[in-house]
Amino acid sequence: MSGSRTFRWEEIEQSEPLPGITRQTIHGDHQTVVRYVYAPGSVFPIHHHPQEQITLVLSGSIAFTVGGERVVLGPGEVAVIPGGIPHGATVEGRERVVTLNTMSPRRLDDPLDGQQST
Amino acid sequence: MSGSRTFRWEEIEQSEPLPGITRQTIHGDHQTVVRYVYAPGSVFPIHHHPQEQITLVLSGSIAFTVGGERVVLGPGEVAVIPGGIPHGATVEGRERVVTLNTMSPRRLDDPLDGQQST
Repeated sequence: MSGSRTFRWEEIEQSEPLPGITRQTIHGDHQTVVRYVYAPGSVFPIHHHPQEQITLVLSGSIAFTVGGERVVLGPGEVAVIPGGIPHGATVEGRERVVTLNTMSPRRLDDPLDGQQST
Repeated sequence: MSGSRTFRWEEIEQSEPLPGITRQTIHGDHQTVVRYVYAPGSVFPIHHHPQEQITLVLSGSIAFTVGGERVVLGPGEVAVIPGGIPHGATVEGRERVVTLNTMSPRRLDDPLDGQQST
């Protein structure tokens, strides 16, 4: 036994932490990978967490606010967000958005705990 | 300035560490994300490294050997490989394969340094 594990996203439990936003999570020992699907019009409020976050956009277009600056990312684009930096996202277009977010160190709390008013 | 950075994979330098395998790398402070594209027939020999690796298959089908066990992964499938576990991959089908691999702690050495004979 190597301790390795395999998963299929389609078999991983989904939660809906915010309206129109579904989340699936895989934890390693050192990092957490989250698959988010955002419906058009959905909003992930500005929040922050101590983990470094790397967001990889797989499909759709999503407007991020990171450290007070706006950036719109589409498929094949990546954001590296240092720990502690306030960030949020809004889907302004008509397509759903799929992202993979990898966070390190791994994240066992709820990402909405760090939410702050926009 | 928040210290956040954005990237487009299409603008990131590619290397070809092995025949038919291209690699692009983004480093955070705590994790390294690598985009690999594997041509049909390409082989990534068994190797190991101290970092935990999470491999996310975006397209195509790829046969991994992890800790001596074989597993074939396709789109939407994920492998979590603890640090130190020998692993390698072979593309047995006719489609090219795209994966995102995230490693933590971040990885500044060459992943072939840990290569061992198969």
